[in-house]
Amino acid sequence: MKKIANFGKLALAGLLSLSLVACGGSNETASTESNQTAAPVAKVEPIEWKMVTTWPKNFPALGTGAEHLAQSITAMSGGRIKVKVYAAGELVPALEAFDAVSRGTAQIGHAASYYWKGKVPAAQFFTTVPFGLTAQEMNAWLSHGGGQALWEEVYAPFNIIPMAAGNTGTQMGGWFNKEINSVADLNGLKMRMPGLGGEVLADAGVTVVNMPGSEMFTALQTGTIDATEFVGPYNDLAFGIYKAAKYYYYPGWQEPGSTVETFINKDAFEALPEDLKLIVRAAARQTNADILDEYTAMNNSALNTLINEHGVILKRYPDDVLAEFRASTQRVMEKVAANDPLSQKVYDSMKDFKQNVMQWSDISERAILNARSAD
Amino acid sequence: MKKIANFGKLALAGLLSLSLVACGGSNETASTESNQTAAPVAKVEPIEWKMVTTWPKNFPALGTGAEHLAQSITAMSGGRIKVKVYAAGELVPALEAFDAVSRGTAQIGHAASYYWKGKVPAAQFFTTVPFGLTAQEMNAWLSHGGGQALWEEVYAPFNIIPMAAGNTGTQMGGWFNKEINSVADLNGLKMRMPGLGGEVLADAGVTVVNMPGSEMFTALQTGTIDATEFVGPYNDLAFGIYKAAKYYYYPGWQEPGSTVETFINKDAFEALPEDLKLIVRAAARQTNADILDEYTAMNNSALNTLINEHGVILKRYPDDVLAEFRASTQRVMEKVAANDPLSQKVYDSMKDFKQNVMQWSDISERAILNARSAD
Repeated sequence: MKKIANFGKLALAGLLSLSLVACGGSNETASTESNQTAAPVAKVEPIEWKMVTTWPKNFPALGTGAEHLAQSITAMSGGRIKVKVYAAGELVPALEAFDAVSRGTAQIGHAASYYWKGKVPAAQFFTTVPFGLTAQEMNAWLSHGGGQALWEEVYAPFNIIPMAAGNTGTQMGGWFNKEINSVADLNGLKMRMPGLGGEVLADAGVTVVNMPGSEMFTALQTGTIDATEFVGPYNDLAFGIYKAAKYYYYPGWQEPGSTVETFINKDAFEALPEDLKLIVRAAARQTNADILDEYTAMNNSALNTLINEHGVILKRYPDDVLAEFRASTQRVMEKVAANDPLSQKVYDSMKDFKQNVMQWSDISERAILNARSAD
Repeated sequence: MKKIANFGKLALAGLLSLSLVACGGSNETASTESNQTAAPVAKVEPIEWKMVTTWPKNFPALGTGAEHLAQSITAMSGGRIKVKVYAAGELVPALEAFDAVSRGTAQIGHAASYYWKGKVPAAQFFTTVPFGLTAQEMNAWLSHGGGQALWEEVYAPFNIIPMAAGNTGTQMGGWFNKEINSVADLNGLKMRMPGLGGEVLADAGVTVVNMPGSEMFTALQTGTIDATEFVGPYNDLAFGIYKAAKYYYYPGWQEPGSTVETFINKDAFEALPEDLKLIVRAAARQTNADILDEYTAMNNSALNTLINEHGVILKRYPDDVLAEFRASTQRVMEKVAANDPLSQKVYDSMKDFKQNVMQWSDISERAILNARSAD
């Protein structure tokens, strides 16, 4: 028995041809055939992951980005992980996606971290901060400025690992049904703007109205609100906001470069072999770039359609209004940070990084964009 | 013979235990052993790739980026592809890397496409163009503006597939040992600047001197040249150029966002199974982002070291000098494109994309960078 077992092990180690020869084959034929036995990979059951998202199905760049992320993980893993995507509300409501991944109902999610600020205030910093980092700077902070480690610390109590998996680039400032010509025009203005941007507006004297995106359109048409923030031309055109407001303001001071996230149940991730962990990380990194590419390439033609076919009027926020927002941002961010130790820690890291990277951006990206457009 | 061959094929189909039994083992033992033979993945010999690069070993961001790309392919593939990196000159001289991959001496390379302009003039457009696209815009052109397809067309005659695999971001304008205060100061100035930037300088009246990077330092010290272009603070500090020149000009109009490439022998790539092809593409995409992150995060502290510890004087090119360079760029690019049909095709695509994306960048990235730094 012992001897036969050992013989079997030798066969494993590539000596199979010898056993066939011993049974009467010719050396040449047996050897050829045995090489073929070694090749096929044993069939392993695929790992099945559910991906919950906060996006409507096929929502441009974001919903389609989640689909591409899922397909990418499946394809790169040679089918060893199969990822099925659920649009908002299909498996759980949009705003329960974080909980679903936390408890393992789903293994992976695709969303924006500021949706979870009610549960964990420090989460919102990992999407964007008013007058904060651009997409390129945010990626640099995450990978070289300590951002990724902080994000993991913030999500650790929820048994979740976060990764950047998309960026909208700089957004638009919002849709208005009246012009904003000075700081005085902010007084009494009713605007829908969620998150930190909304807190800044409130500090600057705007009446901030909170409502779901689904109610935004009617509220604008009926005058319940005068203005609303959304994303940028590519998404806003598809959403049809131009039918309810005509003035389209830039720049999107409230979201200079919003990171989209994927978030993964820690147990599900840790159970993966090393190569699959790296494949999931690479797929997220790829999606992070893919979504930014799509927005960068698509926004301008959407903007032209809005202006030329739908009579939208493009306006820049006046300098004094931007200065007011900047001053309010400073006050609001200090207050938000002071309310929560983890927020303070994240904010301090981001602020230090921004002070440093801005000096470089001013003489590189900003200087070339200005020089390029000078005539 | 025929019969024995068929027996061998049956063994392939999982009937190996029978052959062992026939050789005198007990059924039970043989069966156990054969299950073990079936379960572990058959050991397949790894595919071995050589990566040739144009970088010195461990050159910050670029040499280290090539190493990370290689490690990433190996790790994500679970060791199925092993990639060994050769620094410039180790396997072939730097400027023979393209030929080495073309003929299959190496399977993959990491370099910058403008090194191959002598062989294929259209290649240089895929690194950068003076006053051209930023890193973010370049990525968008490659993936959504037809850039990737054109790049593949340009490299196809060489049996090579190109992919973006790094970006320096906006570079610096160069090192000078005298101030440039007006267009008049360009006359008779002797500057080392390779590529399209050099052609623009020549058009603007500068005496352009070509020499390898290795001779640049002494030439600056001895006054053979008055100025030289290199990369940006992170690399330039490491290279010690501040010892030979004190004025450091921005912005890097000649390289607004230089793409670094990986290029792969087409036969080697096509021989890969589908999952490994995707893994190689994802590793390139990951490296594309990694290198930009590193430059973005590291440049400013290097710049501060240059200024505060080495007495470097940071200067912005005067507006009239930038305007002169812009006008020269227009003339030079039209001429370069007109000399070669493929260059014309690539240039036209890039120009169309730039006209479009600039309108968006002006009201998004540029507008927020200006608003953010206004006070």
